[in-house]
Amino acid sequence: MEMLSENKCFDGVQGVYSHRSESCKGDMTFGLFVPPQAKLQEVPVLWYLSGLTCTHENAMTKAGAQRWAAENGIALVFPDTSPRGDDVADDDAYDLGKGAGFYVNATQDPWAPHYKMFDYIAEELPALLFKEFPLLEEAQGITGHSMGGHGALTLAMARPDQYTSVSAFAPIANPTASDWGRKQLSAYLGDDEAAWAAHDATLMMRETGHPSHVLIDQGGADNFLDLLKPEALSEAMAARRQSGTFRMQAGYDHSYFFVSTFMEDHVAFHADALYGV
Amino acid sequence: MEMLSENKCFDGVQGVYSHRSESCKGDMTFGLFVPPQAKLQEVPVLWYLSGLTCTHENAMTKAGAQRWAAENGIALVFPDTSPRGDDVADDDAYDLGKGAGFYVNATQDPWAPHYKMFDYIAEELPALLFKEFPLLEEAQGITGHSMGGHGALTLAMARPDQYTSVSAFAPIANPTASDWGRKQLSAYLGDDEAAWAAHDATLMMRETGHPSHVLIDQGGADNFLDLLKPEALSEAMAARRQSGTFRMQAGYDHSYFFVSTFMEDHVAFHADALYGV
Repeated sequence: MEMLSENKCFDGVQGVYSHRSESCKGDMTFGLFVPPQAKLQEVPVLWYLSGLTCTHENAMTKAGAQRWAAENGIALVFPDTSPRGDDVADDDAYDLGKGAGFYVNATQDPWAPHYKMFDYIAEELPALLFKEFPLLEEAQGITGHSMGGHGALTLAMARPDQYTSVSAFAPIANPTASDWGRKQLSAYLGDDEAAWAAHDATLMMRETGHPSHVLIDQGGADNFLDLLKPEALSEAMAARRQSGTFRMQAGYDHSYFFVSTFMEDHVAFHADALYGV
Repeated sequence: MEMLSENKCFDGVQGVYSHRSESCKGDMTFGLFVPPQAKLQEVPVLWYLSGLTCTHENAMTKAGAQRWAAENGIALVFPDTSPRGDDVADDDAYDLGKGAGFYVNATQDPWAPHYKMFDYIAEELPALLFKEFPLLEEAQGITGHSMGGHGALTLAMARPDQYTSVSAFAPIANPTASDWGRKQLSAYLGDDEAAWAAHDATLMMRETGHPSHVLIDQGGADNFLDLLKPEALSEAMAARRQSGTFRMQAGYDHSYFFVSTFMEDHVAFHADALYGV
Protein backbone atom coordinates (compact mmCIF):
# COMPACT_ATOMS: atom_id res chain seq x y z
CA MET A 1 0.00 0.00 0.00
CA GLU A 2 1.28 3.45 -0.90
CA MET A 3 0.34 6.72 0.79
CA LEU A 4 -0.48 9.37 -1.82
CA SER A 5 -1.43 12.19 0.55
CA GLU A 6 -2.34 12.86 4.15
CA ASN A 7 -3.95 16.11 5.28
CA LYS A 8 -4.82 17.03 8.81
CA CYS A 9 -8.54 17.70 8.98
CA PHE A 10 -10.76 18.28 12.03
CA ASP A 11 -7.88 17.11 14.21
CA GLY A 12 -7.86 13.76 12.37
CA VAL A 13 -6.17 12.70 9.15
CA GLN A 14 -7.69 12.58 5.67
CA GLY A 15 -5.48 10.20 3.73
CA VAL A 16 -5.44 8.89 0.18
CA TYR A 17 -3.79 5.53 -0.51
CA SER A 18 -3.30 3.23 -3.46
CA HIS A 19 -2.72 -0.50 -3.49
CA ARG A 20 -2.66 -3.46 -5.79
CA SER A 21 -6.10 -5.07 -5.83
CA GLU A 22 -6.33 -8.80 -6.38
CA SER A 23 -10.08 -8.60 -6.96
CA CYS A 24 -9.87 -5.89 -9.60
CA LYS A 25 -6.50 -6.99 -10.93
CA GLY A 26 -4.98 -3.53 -10.92
CA ASP A 27 -4.14 -0.54 -8.78
CA MET A 28 -6.97 0.99 -6.77
CA THR A 29 -7.11 4.28 -4.85
CA PHE A 30 -9.19 5.03 -1.77
CA GLY A 31 -9.66 7.80 0.77
CA LEU A 32 -9.65 7.15 4.51
CA PHE A 33 -10.48 9.64 7.23
CA VAL A 34 -9.21 8.63 10.66
CA PRO A 35 -10.80 10.70 13.44
CA PRO A 36 -8.80 12.07 16.38
CA GLN A 37 -10.28 9.51 18.77
CA ALA A 38 -8.17 6.84 17.04
CA LYS A 39 -5.12 8.23 18.84
CA LEU A 40 -6.51 6.72 22.05
CA GLN A 41 -8.93 3.94 21.15
CA GLU A 42 -10.19 1.76 18.33
CA VAL A 43 -12.83 3.39 16.16
CA PRO A 44 -15.54 1.81 13.98
CA VAL A 45 -15.71 2.33 10.22
CA LEU A 46 -18.34 3.89 7.98
CA TRP A 47 -18.13 3.06 4.28
CA TYR A 48 -19.25 5.74 1.84
CA LEU A 49 -19.91 4.39 -1.66
CA SER A 50 -20.05 6.99 -4.42
CA GLY A 51 -22.22 7.37 -7.47
CA LEU A 52 -21.81 7.24 -11.23
CA THR A 53 -18.73 9.02 -12.65
CA CYS A 54 -17.22 9.54 -9.19
CA THR A 55 -13.81 8.50 -7.92
CA HIS A 56 -12.67 8.21 -4.29
CA GLU A 57 -12.33 11.97 -4.27
CA ASN A 58 -15.79 13.48 -4.76
CA ALA A 59 -17.34 12.75 -1.39
CA MET A 60 -14.02 13.20 0.37
CA THR A 61 -13.89 16.84 -0.72
CA LYS A 62 -17.57 17.79 -1.08
CA ALA A 63 -19.74 15.89 1.43
CA GLY A 64 -18.50 17.60 4.59
CA ALA A 65 -18.52 14.26 6.38
CA GLN A 66 -15.22 14.58 8.23
CA ARG A 67 -16.64 17.12 10.67
CA TRP A 68 -19.27 14.69 11.87
CA ALA A 69 -16.96 11.68 11.82
CA ALA A 70 -14.53 13.59 14.03
CA GLU A 71 -17.33 14.56 16.38
CA ASN A 72 -18.64 11.00 16.59
CA GLY A 73 -15.37 9.12 16.58
CA ILE A 74 -15.78 7.02 13.47
CA ALA A 75 -13.49 6.45 10.48
CA LEU A 76 -14.73 7.05 6.92
CA VAL A 77 -13.68 5.05 3.87
CA PHE A 78 -14.15 6.48 0.37
CA PRO A 79 -13.52 3.75 -2.23
CA ASP A 80 -13.41 4.22 -5.98
CA THR A 81 -16.45 3.24 -8.07
CA SER A 82 -14.81 0.85 -10.55
CA PRO A 83 -11.53 -0.73 -11.52
CA ARG A 84 -9.12 1.63 -13.28
CA GLY A 85 -6.26 1.37 -15.74
CA ASP A 86 -5.53 1.20 -19.43
CA ASP A 87 -6.16 -2.53 -19.58
CA VAL A 88 -9.64 -2.23 -18.03
CA ALA A 89 -12.66 -2.46 -20.33
CA ASP A 90 -14.70 0.70 -20.68
CA ASP A 91 -17.69 2.12 -22.53
CA ASP A 92 -18.35 5.52 -24.04
CA ALA A 93 -21.45 5.95 -21.85
CA TYR A 94 -20.93 7.57 -18.45
CA ASP A 95 -23.07 4.90 -16.81
CA LEU A 96 -21.23 1.74 -17.87
CA GLY A 97 -17.64 0.66 -17.34
CA LYS A 98 -15.21 2.94 -15.54
CA GLY A 99 -16.88 5.02 -12.85
CA ALA A 100 -19.91 2.74 -13.01
CA GLY A 101 -19.00 -0.60 -11.43
CA PHE A 102 -22.42 -0.93 -9.75
CA TYR A 103 -20.87 -2.89 -6.86
CA VAL A 104 -21.28 -6.29 -8.53
CA ASN A 105 -18.89 -9.07 -9.57
CA ALA A 106 -19.11 -9.15 -13.36
CA THR A 107 -19.43 -12.57 -14.94
CA GLN A 108 -19.60 -11.44 -18.57
CA ASP A 109 -16.86 -10.37 -20.93
CA PRO A 110 -15.29 -7.92 -21.45
CA TRP A 111 -16.06 -6.91 -17.85
CA ALA A 112 -15.40 -10.12 -15.93
CA PRO A 113 -11.60 -9.88 -15.56
CA HIS A 114 -11.55 -6.61 -13.59
CA TYR A 115 -15.08 -5.61 -12.53
CA LYS A 116 -15.28 -7.31 -9.10
CA MET A 117 -16.43 -4.35 -7.05
CA PHE A 118 -18.59 -6.44 -4.70
CA ASP A 119 -15.62 -8.54 -3.62
CA TYR A 120 -13.38 -5.50 -3.54
CA ILE A 121 -15.62 -3.50 -1.22
CA ALA A 122 -16.95 -6.32 0.93
CA GLU A 123 -13.81 -8.48 1.25
CA GLU A 124 -10.53 -7.17 -0.04
CA LEU A 125 -10.51 -3.53 1.04
CA PRO A 126 -11.76 -4.16 4.60
CA ALA A 127 -9.13 -6.88 5.03
CA LEU A 128 -6.45 -4.44 3.88
CA LEU A 129 -7.74 -1.65 6.13
CA PHE A 130 -7.92 -3.77 9.26
CA LYS A 131 -4.38 -5.02 8.60
CA GLU A 132 -2.81 -1.65 7.76
CA PHE A 133 -4.70 0.50 10.28
CA PRO A 134 -4.88 -1.47 13.53
CA LEU A 135 -6.85 1.27 15.29
CA LEU A 136 -9.85 0.57 13.08
CA GLU A 137 -12.20 -1.88 14.72
CA GLU A 138 -14.17 -4.28 12.62
CA ALA A 139 -17.59 -2.79 13.36
CA GLN A 140 -18.80 -1.46 10.02
CA GLY A 141 -21.62 0.72 8.78
CA ILE A 142 -22.25 1.49 5.13
CA THR A 143 -23.84 4.36 3.24
CA GLY A 144 -23.65 5.88 -0.21
CA HIS A 145 -25.18 8.15 -2.81
CA SER A 146 -27.10 7.20 -5.95
CA MET A 147 -25.28 4.17 -7.43
CA GLY A 148 -23.43 4.11 -4.12
CA GLY A 149 -26.72 4.07 -2.20
CA HIS A 150 -27.63 1.04 -4.27
CA GLY A 151 -24.27 -0.47 -3.32
CA ALA A 152 -24.71 0.28 0.37
CA LEU A 153 -28.19 -1.20 0.59
CA THR A 154 -27.42 -4.31 -1.45
CA LEU A 155 -24.14 -5.08 0.31
CA ALA A 156 -25.73 -4.56 3.72
CA MET A 157 -28.66 -6.84 2.96
CA ALA A 158 -26.36 -9.46 1.44
CA ARG A 159 -24.14 -9.37 4.53
CA PRO A 160 -26.18 -8.36 7.56
CA ASP A 161 -23.58 -9.75 9.96
CA GLN A 162 -20.81 -7.65 8.43
CA TYR A 163 -22.66 -4.33 8.29
CA THR A 164 -24.12 -3.25 11.61
CA SER A 165 -25.90 -0.26 10.07
CA VAL A 166 -26.95 0.96 6.63
CA SER A 167 -28.25 4.18 5.14
CA ALA A 168 -28.46 5.77 1.71
CA PHE A 169 -28.76 9.12 -0.03
CA ALA A 170 -30.98 9.02 -3.15
CA PRO A 171 -30.17 5.38 -3.92
CA ILE A 172 -30.81 3.66 -7.23
CA ALA A 173 -33.51 1.75 -5.45
CA ASN A 174 -34.86 -0.67 -8.01
CA PRO A 175 -32.27 -1.16 -10.76
CA THR A 176 -33.92 -4.23 -12.29
CA ALA A 177 -36.79 -1.93 -13.28
CA SER A 178 -34.73 1.12 -14.32
CA ASP A 179 -32.50 2.30 -17.13
CA TRP A 180 -30.00 2.83 -14.30
CA GLY A 181 -29.69 -0.89 -13.78
CA ARG A 182 -31.07 -3.05 -16.56
CA LYS A 183 -28.35 -2.04 -18.99
CA GLN A 184 -25.56 -2.48 -16.47
CA LEU A 185 -26.80 -5.68 -14.82
CA SER A 186 -27.30 -7.16 -18.27
CA ALA A 187 -23.78 -6.18 -19.31
CA TYR A 188 -22.05 -7.31 -16.13
CA LEU A 189 -24.18 -10.32 -15.16
CA GLY A 190 -25.77 -11.49 -18.41
CA ASP A 191 -29.35 -11.75 -19.54
CA ASP A 192 -30.64 -14.10 -16.84
CA GLU A 193 -32.55 -11.69 -14.63
CA ALA A 194 -32.54 -14.17 -11.76
CA ALA A 195 -28.91 -13.18 -11.20
CA TRP A 196 -29.88 -9.52 -10.96
CA ALA A 197 -32.16 -9.92 -7.97
CA ALA A 198 -29.23 -10.16 -5.56
CA HIS A 199 -28.30 -6.60 -6.57
CA ASP A 200 -31.64 -4.81 -6.33
CA ALA A 201 -32.40 -3.09 -3.03
CA THR A 202 -36.16 -3.21 -3.50
CA LEU A 203 -36.20 -6.93 -4.31
CA MET A 204 -33.83 -7.70 -1.44
CA MET A 205 -35.92 -5.59 0.91
CA ARG A 206 -38.96 -7.67 -0.02
CA GLU A 207 -37.03 -10.91 0.61
CA THR A 208 -34.87 -10.21 3.63
CA GLY A 209 -34.47 -6.57 4.68
CA HIS A 210 -31.82 -5.73 7.25
CA PRO A 211 -31.79 -6.46 10.99
CA SER A 212 -31.03 -2.81 11.86
CA HIS A 213 -33.04 0.38 11.52
CA VAL A 214 -32.48 1.64 7.93
CA LEU A 215 -32.21 5.36 7.06
CA ILE A 216 -32.98 6.69 3.56
CA ASP A 217 -32.95 10.32 2.43
CA GLN A 218 -34.27 11.27 -1.00
CA GLY A 219 -34.53 14.74 -2.48
CA GLY A 220 -38.04 15.61 -3.58
CA ALA A 221 -36.76 17.75 -6.46
CA ASP A 222 -34.20 15.18 -7.61
CA ASN A 223 -33.71 15.35 -11.38
CA PHE A 224 -33.46 11.54 -11.54
CA LEU A 225 -36.53 10.38 -9.62
CA ASP A 226 -37.74 8.34 -12.61
CA LEU A 227 -34.50 6.40 -12.63
CA LEU A 228 -34.05 6.08 -8.87
CA LYS A 229 -37.58 4.79 -8.13
CA PRO A 230 -37.67 5.63 -4.42
CA GLU A 231 -41.37 4.70 -4.27
CA ALA A 232 -40.53 1.05 -4.96
CA LEU A 233 -38.10 0.88 -2.04
CA SER A 234 -40.37 2.86 0.25
CA GLU A 235 -43.25 0.51 -0.47
CA ALA A 236 -41.07 -2.55 0.06
CA MET A 237 -39.79 -1.21 3.38
CA ALA A 238 -43.28 -0.58 4.65
CA ALA A 239 -44.64 -3.86 3.29
CA ARG A 240 -42.10 -5.98 5.15
CA ARG A 241 -42.36 -3.80 8.28
CA GLN A 242 -38.65 -3.01 8.00
CA SER A 243 -37.50 -0.93 10.94
CA GLY A 244 -36.50 2.22 9.15
CA THR A 245 -36.89 5.88 8.31
CA PHE A 246 -37.56 7.00 4.76
CA ARG A 247 -37.40 10.77 4.36
CA MET A 248 -38.53 12.64 1.26
CA GLN A 249 -36.74 15.99 1.55
CA ALA A 250 -38.77 18.60 -0.30
CA GLY A 251 -36.90 20.83 -2.71
CA TYR A 252 -33.54 19.02 -2.64
CA ASP A 253 -31.95 17.71 -5.84
CA HIS A 254 -29.36 15.00 -6.58
CA SER A 255 -26.25 17.07 -5.90
CA TYR A 256 -23.76 17.11 -3.08
CA PHE A 257 -25.60 20.19 -1.79
CA PHE A 258 -28.29 17.65 -0.87
CA VAL A 259 -25.86 15.03 0.43
CA SER A 260 -23.91 17.47 2.58
CA THR A 261 -27.11 18.86 4.07
CA PHE A 262 -28.07 15.53 5.60
CA MET A 263 -24.61 14.08 6.20
CA GLU A 264 -24.64 15.06 9.87
CA ASP A 265 -27.73 12.93 10.45
CA HIS A 266 -26.31 9.92 8.64
CA VAL A 267 -22.96 9.95 10.40
CA ALA A 268 -24.65 10.32 13.79
CA PHE A 269 -27.08 7.52 12.87
CA HIS A 270 -24.24 5.13 12.09
CA ALA A 271 -22.24 6.22 15.12
CA ASP A 272 -25.16 5.42 17.40
CA ALA A 273 -25.47 1.95 15.87
CA LEU A 274 -21.74 1.25 15.79
CA TYR A 275 -21.20 2.38 19.37
CA GLY A 276 -24.32 0.53 20.47
CA VAL A 277 -25.92 3.67 21.88
CA MET B 1 -27.94 39.03 -14.22
CA GLU B 2 -28.48 35.42 -15.22
CA MET B 3 -29.11 32.51 -12.87
CA LEU B 4 -26.90 29.56 -13.84
CA SER B 5 -27.96 27.17 -11.08
CA GLU B 6 -29.76 27.07 -7.76
CA ASN B 7 -29.52 24.11 -5.39
CA LYS B 8 -31.32 23.77 -2.11
CA CYS B 9 -28.71 23.33 0.62
CA PHE B 10 -29.18 23.34 4.42
CA ASP B 11 -32.69 24.66 3.89
CA GLY B 12 -31.29 27.69 2.05
CA VAL B 13 -30.31 28.18 -1.58
CA GLN B 14 -26.84 27.88 -3.09
CA GLY B 15 -27.02 29.82 -6.34
CA VAL B 16 -24.58 30.59 -9.13
CA TYR B 17 -25.13 33.72 -11.22
CA SER B 18 -23.37 35.53 -14.04
CA HIS B 19 -23.55 39.17 -14.98
CA ARG B 20 -21.88 41.76 -17.13
CA SER B 21 -19.23 43.53 -15.08
CA GLU B 22 -18.45 47.15 -15.85
CA SER B 23 -15.31 47.06 -13.73
CA CYS B 24 -13.87 43.99 -15.38
CA LYS B 25 -15.38 44.71 -18.80
CA GLY B 26 -16.70 41.20 -19.28
CA ASP B 27 -18.96 38.51 -17.87
CA MET B 28 -18.30 37.46 -14.28
CA THR B 29 -19.69 34.51 -12.32
CA PHE B 30 -20.26 34.33 -8.57
CA GLY B 31 -21.80 31.98 -6.02
CA LEU B 32 -24.30 33.18 -3.41
CA PHE B 33 -25.64 31.17 -0.51
CA VAL B 34 -28.83 32.59 0.97
CA PRO B 35 -29.66 31.05 4.36
CA PRO B 36 -33.18 30.01 5.33
CA GLN B 37 -33.56 32.98 7.70
CA ALA B 38 -33.80 35.23 4.61
CA LYS B 39 -37.34 33.97 4.08
CA LEU B 40 -38.37 36.01 7.11
CA GLN B 41 -35.82 38.74 7.69
CA GLU B 42 -32.87 40.55 6.19
CA VAL B 43 -29.56 38.77 6.64
CA PRO B 44 -26.01 40.15 6.65
CA VAL B 45 -23.40 39.11 4.11
CA LEU B 46 -20.02 37.39 4.49
CA TRP B 47 -17.64 37.65 1.55
CA TYR B 48 -15.33 34.72 0.92
CA LEU B 49 -12.40 35.57 -1.37
CA SER B 50 -10.60 32.61 -2.90
CA GLY B 51 -6.96 31.89 -3.59
CA LEU B 52 -4.74 31.44 -6.61
CA THR B 53 -6.15 29.30 -9.46
CA CYS B 54 -9.63 29.22 -7.89
CA THR B 55 -12.93 30.25 -9.41
CA HIS B 56 -16.20 31.02 -7.60
CA GLU B 57 -16.67 27.28 -7.25
CA ASN B 58 -13.89 25.89 -5.05
CA ALA B 59 -14.97 27.19 -1.68
CA MET B 60 -18.64 26.83 -2.57
CA THR B 61 -18.21 23.06 -2.92
CA LYS B 62 -15.32 22.29 -0.58
CA ALA B 63 -15.29 24.64 2.42
CA GLY B 64 -18.43 23.35 4.13
CA ALA B 65 -19.42 26.92 4.95
CA GLN B 66 -23.12 26.69 4.13
CA ARG B 67 -23.87 24.61 7.22
CA TRP B 68 -22.60 27.35 9.51
CA ALA B 69 -24.09 30.18 7.47
CA ALA B 70 -27.48 28.48 7.72
CA GLU B 71 -27.05 28.02 11.44
CA ASN B 72 -26.00 31.63 11.96
CA GLY B 73 -28.31 33.32 9.47
CA ILE B 74 -25.79 34.95 7.20
CA ALA B 75 -25.42 34.95 3.41
CA LEU B 76 -22.17 33.92 1.74
CA VAL B 77 -20.76 35.39 -1.47
CA PHE B 78 -18.13 33.49 -3.47
CA PRO B 79 -16.69 35.77 -6.18
CA ASP B 80 -14.29 34.74 -8.90
CA THR B 81 -10.57 35.56 -8.52
CA SER B 82 -9.97 37.47 -11.76
CA PRO B 83 -11.65 38.72 -14.91
CA ARG B 84 -12.37 35.99 -17.47
CA GLY B 85 -12.83 35.71 -21.20
CA ASP B 86 -10.87 35.29 -24.40
CA ASP B 87 -10.08 39.00 -24.62
CA VAL B 88 -8.58 39.13 -21.11
CA ALA B 89 -4.79 39.19 -20.79
CA ASP B 90 -3.23 36.13 -19.20
CA ASP B 91 0.12 34.61 -18.35
CA ASP B 92 1.43 31.06 -18.49
CA ALA B 93 2.21 31.13 -14.78
CA TYR B 94 -0.54 29.98 -12.40
CA ASP B 95 0.09 32.98 -10.16
CA LEU B 96 -0.37 35.84 -12.62
CA GLY B 97 -3.30 36.79 -14.80
CA LYS B 98 -6.46 34.68 -14.81
CA GLY B 99 -7.16 33.11 -11.43
CA ALA B 100 -4.67 35.51 -9.84
CA GLY B 101 -6.20 38.97 -9.78
CA PHE B 102 -4.78 39.75 -6.33
CA TYR B 103 -7.76 42.03 -5.56
CA VAL B 104 -6.14 45.17 -6.99
CA ASN B 105 -7.03 47.62 -9.74
CA ALA B 106 -4.31 47.17 -12.35
CA THR B 107 -2.79 50.34 -13.78
CA GLN B 108 -0.32 48.69 -16.15
CA ASP B 109 -0.83 47.15 -19.55
CA PRO B 110 -1.76 44.55 -20.61
CA TRP B 111 -3.69 44.12 -17.33
CA ALA B 112 -5.27 47.52 -16.86
CA PRO B 113 -8.32 47.15 -19.11
CA HIS B 114 -9.90 44.19 -17.23
CA TYR B 115 -8.07 43.57 -13.96
CA LYS B 116 -10.11 45.76 -11.60
CA MET B 117 -10.82 43.21 -8.90
CA PHE B 118 -10.69 45.73 -6.05
CA ASP B 119 -13.47 47.80 -7.57
CA TYR B 120 -15.35 44.69 -8.58
CA ILE B 121 -15.39 43.17 -5.09
CA ALA B 122 -15.69 46.37 -3.06
CA GLU B 123 -18.09 48.35 -5.26
CA GLU B 124 -19.74 46.70 -8.20
CA LEU B 125 -20.68 43.26 -6.90
CA PRO B 126 -22.12 44.47 -3.59
CA ALA B 127 -24.19 47.07 -5.44
CA LEU B 128 -25.54 44.36 -7.72
CA LEU B 129 -26.26 42.00 -4.81
CA PHE B 130 -28.12 44.55 -2.72
CA LYS B 131 -30.21 45.50 -5.76
CA GLU B 132 -31.01 41.97 -6.93
CA PHE B 133 -31.43 40.32 -3.52
CA PRO B 134 -33.37 42.74 -1.35
CA LEU B 135 -33.27 40.40 1.67
CA LEU B 136 -29.54 40.93 1.98
CA GLU B 137 -28.76 43.72 4.40
CA GLU B 138 -25.74 45.90 3.85
CA ALA B 139 -23.80 44.73 6.90
CA GLN B 140 -20.74 42.99 5.48
CA GLY B 141 -17.94 40.82 6.80
CA ILE B 142 -15.08 39.56 4.70
CA THR B 143 -12.81 36.51 4.81
CA GLY B 144 -10.72 34.51 2.40
CA HIS B 145 -7.97 31.97 1.88
CA SER B 146 -4.38 32.55 0.78
CA MET B 147 -4.54 35.23 -1.97
CA GLY B 148 -8.14 35.67 -0.82
CA GLY B 149 -7.01 36.16 2.76
CA HIS B 150 -4.77 38.92 1.44
CA GLY B 151 -7.79 40.35 -0.35
CA ALA B 152 -9.99 40.18 2.73
CA LEU B 153 -7.47 41.86 5.01
CA THR B 154 -6.50 44.60 2.56
CA LEU B 155 -10.05 45.44 1.52
CA ALA B 156 -11.20 45.52 5.14
CA MET B 157 -8.39 47.81 6.23
CA ALA B 158 -8.91 50.05 3.20
CA ARG B 159 -12.62 50.30 3.96
CA PRO B 160 -13.22 49.87 7.68
CA ASP B 161 -16.68 51.44 7.45
CA GLN B 162 -17.80 48.99 4.78
CA TYR B 163 -16.55 45.79 6.42
CA THR B 164 -17.76 45.29 9.96
CA SER B 165 -15.60 42.20 10.48
CA VAL B 166 -12.60 40.56 8.87
CA SER B 167 -10.82 37.22 9.14
CA ALA B 168 -8.46 35.16 7.02
CA PHE B 169 -7.26 31.63 6.45
CA ALA B 170 -3.52 31.38 5.69
CA PRO B 171 -3.39 34.81 4.04
CA ILE B 172 -0.59 36.06 1.82
CA ALA B 173 0.33 38.35 4.66
CA ASN B 174 3.22 40.44 3.36
CA PRO B 175 3.16 40.39 -0.45
CA THR B 176 5.59 43.28 -0.90
CA ALA B 177 8.24 41.02 0.64
CA SER B 178 7.24 37.74 -1.05
CA ASP B 179 7.41 36.03 -4.41
CA TRP B 180 3.66 35.78 -3.96
CA GLY B 181 3.27 39.51 -4.32
CA ARG B 182 6.27 41.32 -5.73
CA LYS B 183 5.86 39.82 -9.18
CA GLN B 184 2.13 40.47 -9.30
CA LEU B 185 2.14 43.93 -7.73
CA SER B 186 4.91 44.92 -10.13
CA ALA B 187 2.96 43.60 -13.11
CA TYR B 188 -0.39 45.08 -12.11
CA LEU B 189 0.71 48.33 -10.42
CA GLY B 190 4.12 49.07 -11.90
CA ASP B 191 7.54 49.38 -10.34
CA ASP B 192 6.82 52.17 -7.85
CA GLU B 193 6.60 50.23 -4.63
CA ALA B 194 4.81 53.09 -2.91
CA ALA B 195 1.70 51.99 -4.80
CA TRP B 196 2.04 48.47 -3.43
CA ALA B 197 1.74 49.43 0.21
CA ALA B 198 -2.02 49.88 -0.05
CA HIS B 199 -2.24 46.17 -0.86
CA ASP B 200 -0.07 44.61 1.81
CA ALA B 201 -1.82 43.42 4.95
CA THR B 202 1.26 43.69 7.13
CA LEU B 203 2.05 47.25 6.02
CA MET B 204 -1.58 48.28 6.41
CA MET B 205 -1.73 46.67 9.82
CA ARG B 206 1.25 48.75 10.87
CA GLU B 207 -0.38 51.93 9.56
CA THR B 208 -4.05 51.58 10.41
CA GLY B 209 -5.27 48.12 11.44
CA HIS B 210 -9.00 47.51 11.65
CA PRO B 211 -11.51 48.78 14.23
CA SER B 212 -12.87 45.29 14.87
CA HIS B 213 -11.35 42.18 16.43
CA VAL B 214 -9.42 40.39 13.63
CA LEU B 215 -9.26 36.58 13.37
CA ILE B 216 -6.42 34.79 11.53
CA ASP B 217 -5.91 31.03 11.23
CA GLN B 218 -2.68 29.66 9.78
CA GLY B 219 -1.69 26.01 9.39
CA GLY B 220 1.57 25.19 11.08
CA ALA B 221 2.45 22.59 8.44
CA ASP B 222 1.50 24.81 5.52
CA ASN B 223 3.66 24.07 2.47
CA PHE B 224 3.81 27.78 1.65
CA LEU B 225 4.84 29.38 4.93
CA ASP B 226 7.87 31.02 3.30
CA LEU B 227 5.61 32.76 0.80
CA LEU B 228 2.76 33.60 3.18
CA LYS B 229 4.94 35.18 5.89
CA PRO B 230 2.48 34.89 8.77
CA GLU B 231 5.16 36.04 11.24
CA ALA B 232 5.21 39.49 9.63
CA LEU B 233 1.48 39.96 10.09
CA SER B 234 1.48 38.47 13.56
CA GLU B 235 4.24 40.84 14.62
CA ALA B 236 2.44 43.82 13.11
CA MET B 237 -0.81 42.93 14.87
CA ALA B 238 0.89 42.67 18.23
CA ALA B 239 3.00 45.77 17.68
CA ARG B 240 0.01 47.99 16.99
CA ARG B 241 -2.03 46.32 19.76
CA GLN B 242 -4.62 45.31 17.18
CA SER B 243 -7.58 43.65 18.84
CA GLY B 244 -7.32 40.21 17.31
CA THR B 245 -6.69 36.50 17.51
CA PHE B 246 -3.86 34.90 15.56
CA ARG B 247 -3.94 31.12 15.69
CA MET B 248 -1.14 28.87 14.48
CA GLN B 249 -2.84 25.52 13.97
CA ALA B 250 -0.27 22.76 14.39
CA GLY B 251 -0.15 20.11 11.71
CA TYR B 252 -2.56 21.73 9.25
CA ASP B 253 -1.50 22.46 5.67
CA HIS B 254 -2.74 24.89 2.99
CA SER B 255 -5.61 22.76 1.67
CA TYR B 256 -9.36 23.01 2.05
CA PHE B 257 -9.06 20.26 4.66
CA PHE B 258 -7.55 23.04 6.78
CA VAL B 259 -10.07 25.69 5.70
CA SER B 260 -13.09 23.48 6.31
CA THR B 261 -11.82 22.50 9.75
CA PHE B 262 -11.93 26.08 11.01
CA MET B 263 -14.80 27.42 8.90
CA GLU B 264 -17.31 27.00 11.71
CA ASP B 265 -15.29 29.34 13.92
CA HIS B 266 -14.94 31.97 11.20
CA VAL B 267 -18.60 32.02 10.23
CA ALA B 268 -19.66 32.24 13.87
CA PHE B 269 -17.09 34.99 14.45
CA HIS B 270 -18.51 37.08 11.61
CA ALA B 271 -22.08 36.35 12.61
CA ASP B 272 -21.43 37.63 16.11
CA ALA B 273 -19.97 40.84 14.72
CA LEU B 274 -22.62 41.35 12.04
CA TYR B 275 -25.49 40.72 14.43
CA GLY B 276 -23.81 42.88 17.06
CA VAL B 277 -23.71 40.07 19.62
